[in-house]
Amino acid sequence: MESRAVKKSTPVTTMSQQEQSAVVVSLPDGSNREFDNPVSVENVAYDIGPGLGEDCVAGIVDSDLVAPEYRIESDANLRIVTPDSDEYVRVLRHSAAHVLAQAVLRQFPNAKLAIGPPTDEGFYYDFDGVELDSDDLAEIEDEMRKIVAEDYDIVREEVPPEEARERLADQPYKLELLSEIEEAGESVTFYRQGEFEDLCAGPHVASTGKIGALSLLEIAGAYWRGDEDEAMLTRVYGTAFDRESELEAFLERKEEAEKRDHRKIGSAMELFSVPDHSPGCVHFHPNGMAIRRELEEFVREKNRELGYEEVKTPELNRAELWKKSGHYEHFKEEGEMFAWEQNGHEYGLKPMNCANHAYLYDHDRRSYRDLPLRFSEFGMCYRNEQSGELSGMLRVRGFTQDDGHAFVRPDQIRDEIARTLAVIREMYAVFGLDVLLKLETKPDDAIGDDALWERAHDALRNALSDEELEYEVAEGEGAFYGPKIAINAEDAIGREWTIGTVQLDFVQPERIGISYVGEDNEEHRPVMIHRALLGSLERFMGVCIEHFAGDFPLWLAPEQVRVLPITDDDAGYAAEIAEEFGDFRVEVDNRDWTLGKKIRAGHDENVPYMVIVGSDEAESGTISVRDRNERQQGDIERSTFRAHLEAEYEEKRRKADFLD
Amino acid sequence: MESRAVKKSTPVTTMSQQEQSAVVVSLPDGSNREFDNPVSVENVAYDIGPGLGEDCVAGIVDSDLVAPEYRIESDANLRIVTPDSDEYVRVLRHSAAHVLAQAVLRQFPNAKLAIGPPTDEGFYYDFDGVELDSDDLAEIEDEMRKIVAEDYDIVREEVPPEEARERLADQPYKLELLSEIEEAGESVTFYRQGEFEDLCAGPHVASTGKIGALSLLEIAGAYWRGDEDEAMLTRVYGTAFDRESELEAFLERKEEAEKRDHRKIGSAMELFSVPDHSPGCVHFHPNGMAIRRELEEFVREKNRELGYEEVKTPELNRAELWKKSGHYEHFKEEGEMFAWEQNGHEYGLKPMNCANHAYLYDHDRRSYRDLPLRFSEFGMCYRNEQSGELSGMLRVRGFTQDDGHAFVRPDQIRDEIARTLAVIREMYAVFGLDVLLKLETKPDDAIGDDALWERAHDALRNALSDEELEYEVAEGEGAFYGPKIAINAEDAIGREWTIGTVQLDFVQPERIGISYVGEDNEEHRPVMIHRALLGSLERFMGVCIEHFAGDFPLWLAPEQVRVLPITDDDAGYAAEIAEEFGDFRVEVDNRDWTLGKKIRAGHDENVPYMVIVGSDEAESGTISVRDRNERQQGDIERSTFRAHLEAEYEEKRRKADFLD
Repeated sequence: MESRAVKKSTPVTTMSQQEQSAVVVSLPDGSNREFDNPVSVENVAYDIGPGLGEDCVAGIVDSDLVAPEYRIESDANLRIVTPDSDEYVRVLRHSAAHVLAQAVLRQFPNAKLAIGPPTDEGFYYDFDGVELDSDDLAEIEDEMRKIVAEDYDIVREEVPPEEARERLADQPYKLELLSEIEEAGESVTFYRQGEFEDLCAGPHVASTGKIGALSLLEIAGAYWRGDEDEAMLTRVYGTAFDRESELEAFLERKEEAEKRDHRKIGSAMELFSVPDHSPGCVHFHPNGMAIRRELEEFVREKNRELGYEEVKTPELNRAELWKKSGHYEHFKEEGEMFAWEQNGHEYGLKPMNCANHAYLYDHDRRSYRDLPLRFSEFGMCYRNEQSGELSGMLRVRGFTQDDGHAFVRPDQIRDEIARTLAVIREMYAVFGLDVLLKLETKPDDAIGDDALWERAHDALRNALSDEELEYEVAEGEGAFYGPKIAINAEDAIGREWTIGTVQLDFVQPERIGISYVGEDNEEHRPVMIHRALLGSLERFMGVCIEHFAGDFPLWLAPEQVRVLPITDDDAGYAAEIAEEFGDFRVEVDNRDWTLGKKIRAGHDENVPYMVIVGSDEAESGTISVRDRNERQQGDIERSTFRAHLEAEYEEKRRKADFLD
Repeated sequence: MESRAVKKSTPVTTMSQQEQSAVVVSLPDGSNREFDNPVSVENVAYDIGPGLGEDCVAGIVDSDLVAPEYRIESDANLRIVTPDSDEYVRVLRHSAAHVLAQAVLRQFPNAKLAIGPPTDEGFYYDFDGVELDSDDLAEIEDEMRKIVAEDYDIVREEVPPEEARERLADQPYKLELLSEIEEAGESVTFYRQGEFEDLCAGPHVASTGKIGALSLLEIAGAYWRGDEDEAMLTRVYGTAFDRESELEAFLERKEEAEKRDHRKIGSAMELFSVPDHSPGCVHFHPNGMAIRRELEEFVREKNRELGYEEVKTPELNRAELWKKSGHYEHFKEEGEMFAWEQNGHEYGLKPMNCANHAYLYDHDRRSYRDLPLRFSEFGMCYRNEQSGELSGMLRVRGFTQDDGHAFVRPDQIRDEIARTLAVIREMYAVFGLDVLLKLETKPDDAIGDDALWERAHDALRNALSDEELEYEVAEGEGAFYGPKIAINAEDAIGREWTIGTVQLDFVQPERIGISYVGEDNEEHRPVMIHRALLGSLERFMGVCIEHFAGDFPLWLAPEQVRVLPITDDDAGYAAEIAEEFGDFRVEVDNRDWTLGKKIRAGHDENVPYMVIVGSDEAESGTISVRDRNERQQGDIERSTFRAHLEAEYEEKRRKADFLD
């Protein structure tokens, strides 16, 4: 049976019997189409043109990817997805996940299926009742290729709940999902391909043969629903593409990224660890702390430039603080805070620093002359992220926000934001990170009234266009108290990271009730600008490790200079050199190794400069210097080397140019 | 009735019917007296000599102050207290507390009495059901003087519990105390003076007339049993002495200390605050943070000298960590930790950093060549101290330990401790604090076996005597994992503060199971040396504020230089100077004030240097400088002033000597 035919023959109904009325669908070209009744995505496509109708694989309604059969019930934005769309690969990966489940069931008929969604990088499927190793993975992948070659039609079917329950009698996780679908009053659909069927809302490609290239990548553990109190499942990761060449390019990028994995480099270079006794909380080892200290001082320098005064506020606070600021309803009630009762009081670890800084502002009477008043803090924040989402330094529970809050008068907003953005762009350039700006607007869980939000949106838009900065708009992604400019950075291998942020907040000053005395002697409300330059130090350091692949510029290198005595007799002169350059991070390699082996170790361990000393050098009081590009030069005056080191460190140069 | 007579006539009994056997009493002169049966303090005094028996007011049995009637049941050290003893004033203050209660009951017959002990500085009594202001205090003090003048005998009486219960029917707090006395199997005694009597174990002076001088000082709130879940009581503080001249000297010292109160100065200079939303947790305002940053850098410099590598470990950990180290049983089970359950795991805030540092040590394989391995951290620790005990920066719940742990081989202990003590003494000298050393030995709640403890005691004693350092011994005051040397400092007005510490720990390495590979290729146990140089930064900063009375040396002053333009026309040159000296903490006083008023403000606010600029200075490009000793000199080259500032800052000088 042709899947197209099935789609058409499947009547689309909704569970709710709401009154049907005219629906306006807005299309990407700016045009609108009006329909008298709710209309399916597919029918809109046919309405536009029969060719588009034929090609329609899915739709994007507002921001959700949906099946062609999805019924649009009220005014919405719609983009039709065809095999030529960027989003098509997501549909294809979703189908590949089904192929994976089908292959697993062929080999392990007792496997219990949990969920199998597409992701940005590929797809996964979670299974219970199977134990897999890499040999199994290879066999499953072979089976998947067979299923693709067999080119089964992928057929959608809407099923009454009672029948669905019977079909899923053997699949406890699916039954749980089914109950939720019923509770939400949504229609129950299955997708079938050959002997396999899955409870699924779609969309999918027309047949398994449409999956041009696929690869299984990894086996991992994952809790059902990401909750560590639930069963531990076996998650199989894979990816799929339209063409083999795309898969190959992906696997190359992936290999490059894996070489740069900050967890691997962090462990090899003894930078940090995240032990079981503190999940999601980074322990900085001496080498990692050296990098962190450099980043801190860099941020301090920029904070001084921007006129921030450093403060420090405690991690531990009582709930009263956040009830006032609005964090309580946002974080605490969502279980995202570490919070507890003790001695009859509700305590918590701060999830953000803003409430404490607002308190500091409010501690004294402020005049219009005092503004902008700016507080910065390396503020340790904690959030109770799901344990399944934690990853090294990049997804953590404890993080040090390089936080800052500027309390400004409304007439100071534009200048303050522009200065901040300028400094952030300067800072990222130091690391060789390209900056991408995103304006994130009012989210669903916003607090504060619409008028304040509109003022805030306008203020940010104006600041951005005044500075002639390019930016994208991400609707609905702002903070709960105000819109923000997210500062994303593109790293050495083209990956994008969200790092800094500049946020405008008319809401908290209102809720907390802070004020200043204006020139008119009246009380006025200041505006709060929240900003982070490098974002969380943990996250930024993780990005840096991957961006530089551990090959840090001199100023960040945990070990900046290594002194290599050629023989044991040279240990004395080596110690003298180490002492002389002791204001840098210097080590002496006194191991009982040949010089060649020591040099190879120095290169392997990314040491920016090796200073090689033997009897000649000791006699003349000079040194031989070897840089990380394996260039080496002898008979160098120590003062010349020092002058170069100082300049390279001071200028935070990414590339050494001492030797040519 | 003469109280002496009463003492003799009151038969002393114990509740327990234990077998009576020979008792050896050791006296301060080193002699021993043996008694066939348990013996009262007073009888020992009479046994030594009838004069001493007559004079005996109390005894100190081991370290407890007890009544003459107290029966010594087993071998003990005893010191007889007479009116000439140092401890006599404590006895007298305890009696003064009774006089206070008597006076309050005369004026407020419905007052409920809680407890009224002597303290190091005086005494207090807690009352319920009364509200007092300073007028009341004056009246109560008058009434107390009347009671002293009436010279009532203070009479001890042992009472059967049932009778005690009847006498106290109207005093609910006393009834609670009575139940505890009964449960502990102790005898129930009352002390009576005139119409007043109190449930009390004594000791007391012979009559109210013995109280030579008294003064009521303050009214405060205090929870019953120091527990914030219990009733809030009214606490009246007072003090008492043998002679009026002693009281006067005390009140003078107290006034001096109050002027230096770090909470008052901290608020006036906007250094810090401890808001209600974070009891016991210091918020560092910009000025206080400037001081803290200087202290941090000073500690970092000394840590580098001592070979420490800085690390950072999270506040939030799971209980597993402390169960291994022994902190769990010590802190958690005593309710001294902030700890809770969330998502099925037991979390807590670290009360100490040692377990985390031991983890870092254990993360890699260590060889004898790697030792000493030293980790330092500005480690934020939290302990759930009783809210009634919190006070500014000196008694807190959250504190930043300037912590360090050296992992050493046994042969390295002596040198490591000696080097550490030398650096600490150097550091305190910078602040003008005199160092007093105290060897604190095995406490009652110690973990680890006796042999390890003896090794540790010996090691510390040897290190101290090798360095020819004088020290006191405080028996039983060590940490639960090892003995320590407490480093106390005497401040500008002779008060003693416990600040740094050096502790030896054979126990935790054993419990946690850390090791190193020795020259013999076998696994060995390292020794942990815990040390803090300035102790908690919060506490040290509190001590500094009081020690300097806010008049900080240049390097610590939150505002180091203030530029005073003489007229509005001089604002430009003033700004130029401020910019030029911007690497110091500089402010410009642009207020619309006369120069005289600005200068007075600068002195009042303890600004080390004022730079006064007018048209003459602008023309010649020089400056006038005024120091805090009110010396002023004109026509100074800016470079001369800069050179002096840099030197004074660098050398951390306590006294400026720029102008004479």
